[in-house]
Amino acid sequence: MTALNGVAPAVSTETSPFLQAIVQQIRANDTFGTYRNWNDDLLLKPYVIPKKERREITLDGAVDIATMSRILAFYRAIAARIEIETGQLAQVVLDINTEGFGWAIIFSGRLILVLKTIRDAHRFGFDTIEKLNAEGEKLIQKGVELAKAHAEVCDL
Amino acid sequence: MTALNGVAPAVSTETSPFLQAIVQQIRANDTFGTYRNWNDDLLLKPYVIPKKERREITLDGAVDIATMSRILAFYRAIAARIEIETGQLAQVVLDINTEGFGWAIIFSGRLILVLKTIRDAHRFGFDTIEKLNAEGEKLIQKGVELAKAHAEVCDL
Repeated sequence: MTALNGVAPAVSTETSPFLQAIVQQIRANDTFGTYRNWNDDLLLKPYVIPKKERREITLDGAVDIATMSRILAFYRAIAARIEIETGQLAQVVLDINTEGFGWAIIFSGRLILVLKTIRDAHRFGFDTIEKLNAEGEKLIQKGVELAKAHAEVCDL
Repeated sequence: MTALNGVAPAVSTETSPFLQAIVQQIRANDTFGTYRNWNDDLLLKPYVIPKKERREITLDGAVDIATMSRILAFYRAIAARIEIETGQLAQVVLDINTEGFGWAIIFSGRLILVLKTIRDAHRFGFDTIEKLNAEGEKLIQKGVELAKAHAEVCDL
């Protein structure tokens, strides 16, 4: 990712710890080496779907497996970043029904660090790589703050 | 349910608030009135599977829908009882993969009141109605204690 203009520096896959964490999740699950020769930007490309294209994705039928894997890698990357920042183990639970509705939860001990209701999971995606990064960073920061504010509940 | 002997009084479906809560869950989901004429004991019968029979249930293939509904009704009944005891809203999240492994979580605000790892979901069941009741009551009691001890996290 290079900056599109001189004003707002674009997010770089190489320097964003969150985007790197997603890349790690994808590569960790790449049992058959399918993505071995893909660069990081290419791996993250399916996360970027312009709003107009997202709206065109049908909500009929179950959420496809590739989309579910993307959602899981997104939340596991957040959990991995929170673990690094807090030193607390963080676990991901996804409960998404075939209609694409449900919950994403990241918890540590008895404390929920990230709590998101999920709607239209079929259409999971972000307008730009910057928005993907910003959403991840926002959830990480909130999670880290909660873990610090209620450390005793993490240890339960 | 009637007592089998004079020493250990058996649990009664009519007087156990937890068993009644399961019955309510089942009846609430009975859209087509299939169970309208079934008595409560009959509704709970599929929860009782002797250990030997449980072991004979195959772990091949996905967990069947009836079993998943039973697991969901079990945890929703616990959540309903905790809500009554604490006045806090409690939400159930089930994340069970096709191999029958996963998590059951009941939470309120940012606090996890019930946290269970699930193995061999295909074989979900209890030796006796008393054991079903005891397991539910144990989880309810622990959940209520946690909600009281960390009320501020429930309100987050």
